[in-house]
Amino acid sequence: MRRALAPGALLLLLLAGPAVAASHSLPATRETTQWGWLDPREPPKLRVDSGDTVAVETMLHSLDKIRPGVTMDEIVALRKANPGGGPHSVTGPIYVRGAAPGNVLEIRILKIDPKPDAFNFNLPGKEFPTIGVLAREFPEGFSRFFRLDLEHRRAEFKPGIVLDLQPFPGIVAVGIDPNDPSPRKGGSADPLAPVSTLRPWKNGSNLDVNELREGSTIFVPVFLDGGLVWVGDAHCRQGNGEVNLTALECAYRQIVLQLIVRKDMTLKWPRIETSSHWILIGVDEDLNRAMENAVREAVDFLASQTRVPLSRAEAYSLASMVADCRVSQVVDIRKGVHCMIPKSIFVAP
Amino acid sequence: MRRALAPGALLLLLLAGPAVAASHSLPATRETTQWGWLDPREPPKLRVDSGDTVAVETMLHSLDKIRPGVTMDEIVALRKANPGGGPHSVTGPIYVRGAAPGNVLEIRILKIDPKPDAFNFNLPGKEFPTIGVLAREFPEGFSRFFRLDLEHRRAEFKPGIVLDLQPFPGIVAVGIDPNDPSPRKGGSADPLAPVSTLRPWKNGSNLDVNELREGSTIFVPVFLDGGLVWVGDAHCRQGNGEVNLTALECAYRQIVLQLIVRKDMTLKWPRIETSSHWILIGVDEDLNRAMENAVREAVDFLASQTRVPLSRAEAYSLASMVADCRVSQVVDIRKGVHCMIPKSIFVAP
Repeated sequence: MRRALAPGALLLLLLAGPAVAASHSLPATRETTQWGWLDPREPPKLRVDSGDTVAVETMLHSLDKIRPGVTMDEIVALRKANPGGGPHSVTGPIYVRGAAPGNVLEIRILKIDPKPDAFNFNLPGKEFPTIGVLAREFPEGFSRFFRLDLEHRRAEFKPGIVLDLQPFPGIVAVGIDPNDPSPRKGGSADPLAPVSTLRPWKNGSNLDVNELREGSTIFVPVFLDGGLVWVGDAHCRQGNGEVNLTALECAYRQIVLQLIVRKDMTLKWPRIETSSHWILIGVDEDLNRAMENAVREAVDFLASQTRVPLSRAEAYSLASMVADCRVSQVVDIRKGVHCMIPKSIFVAP
Repeated sequence: MRRALAPGALLLLLLAGPAVAASHSLPATRETTQWGWLDPREPPKLRVDSGDTVAVETMLHSLDKIRPGVTMDEIVALRKANPGGGPHSVTGPIYVRGAAPGNVLEIRILKIDPKPDAFNFNLPGKEFPTIGVLAREFPEGFSRFFRLDLEHRRAEFKPGIVLDLQPFPGIVAVGIDPNDPSPRKGGSADPLAPVSTLRPWKNGSNLDVNELREGSTIFVPVFLDGGLVWVGDAHCRQGNGEVNLTALECAYRQIVLQLIVRKDMTLKWPRIETSSHWILIGVDEDLNRAMENAVREAVDFLASQTRVPLSRAEAYSLASMVADCRVSQVVDIRKGVHCMIPKSIFVAP
């Protein structure tokens, strides 16, 4: 996926661009941040050129209202205050000049600096019996707040249990495909009405793939002019599954993104690349189907790469031996599976 | 899970035993190997004491009949020749003296030495439309045979693609619970009739968890006197998912098991321990339910460990942040998810 982006190619891209790539910043304010909905008509908060970097700030859930000290009753009230919308705060949208429907946006995660407040909770199963894998076994809600040790990049769960931080954004989204079947806000039939931040889909959105850390890249198909990039649902650590509904939820002082318009590739679904793996993604409300979709993506990826030509049957066989398929999350209506293909299987002939 | 098994405790166990632990070997012959069925009435091929080690040889699929040179027609014919049974060859059973229903067998994988022949195949989707994640997209069968490079522990898929070997047994089983709902051979109502090697279940069997490598341990509940241990479905590498039906299938010159009767613990489901993780397992025909079962196992494990006491709500919260849930396999009627808990989260207080 990165063939045109070897260092030399990137240099050419930059030299051929309008100027040297610029660095921007986008603070999180009530003006630049939205709660739970992606609205393609939201005015862009920043316009950038392909290749530019943006240091984006994010807020905690519900426009920073879920923070140390809030009670479970307040968490429940906030959840009910935004019916159909996600709990997430998302910063954006960022308009990338030149991005047009049919292109791909390559979004590199260059750096993540968390803020120190974080939390995890499950909603009361008696009120939300389908939210969380074992919701019915946990009728009462539970929450815990953390002050992160940013110097050592860790958090104490309680004495004797310490978690190393592995920050990644749960949501990196572009503006949704007008033909996407996701329900629109208020049941609107307008294809450009806002969609909830809850459901992961073709536009990325709430994928919760915990590999999207510093140094990794997500490739997302573009459906609207300018792409319209949002980032949010900041996580500081998450297990594969996000089983009680939430990760170690936090906010970022800055997450530095490089945004590159790719006119030389097309995609139907988002893909992720790290230094060691290609990651292919499947989502569906049924985890069986999500798995099937992720495997099809993995097989199609292997069959279309050109390092070593493979028939589709060979790609299926190879995937069976090397694809590491993991449960991204199962708590966002549409569940996710991501299959990781190690780059190390390709060797110099 | 290993607290009673610190080196000192093991020494005590050995000193308290009938004698020094003995080493045995069990070659794979037509007498010691069965094809596709676990029969609790199969006479034990070896009787050992708790703490003894056994070097077990295994065969390739179908009693060594699937080997380099066989055609897809022959693979299909072999599949149809054993209706309801698995394709696997399993060596055993081994009777462990003192193992009684309600105990746990701790089975340590001390060493795995593969034989050099290996293969991967998918059956023709036109004849087997539900076997393999994308079976309907692959109407024709496909097979590839490999000669493993055992010196460098690798296999060439084709020029330019090389796989490092990660051998693990797809099947480590004990004799099944007579109350288990698995169908019996020929539809028998006899609770001690043979059960297929296909389905993973409480007795371990076809779990296909690719972490069960050298140095790891599986803990399995005992349902019958002597436990009755089988090992087979030898794999030399498998992705999480085993998506086209097969792994890099091979056979072992020897897999060295240490078999320890644990009367100090009880389990409902198998668990795995590696040097770095505890692995909790869920199976079900529906992957959504398999995930739920694996998460419940992970939460129950965290809530019952005594390093750092945790309420069940705390355990659910912690699992959401640290449990790494992966798709074991989805091709054996009952699908599997395994959730990995890193030991490193527990620190000295």
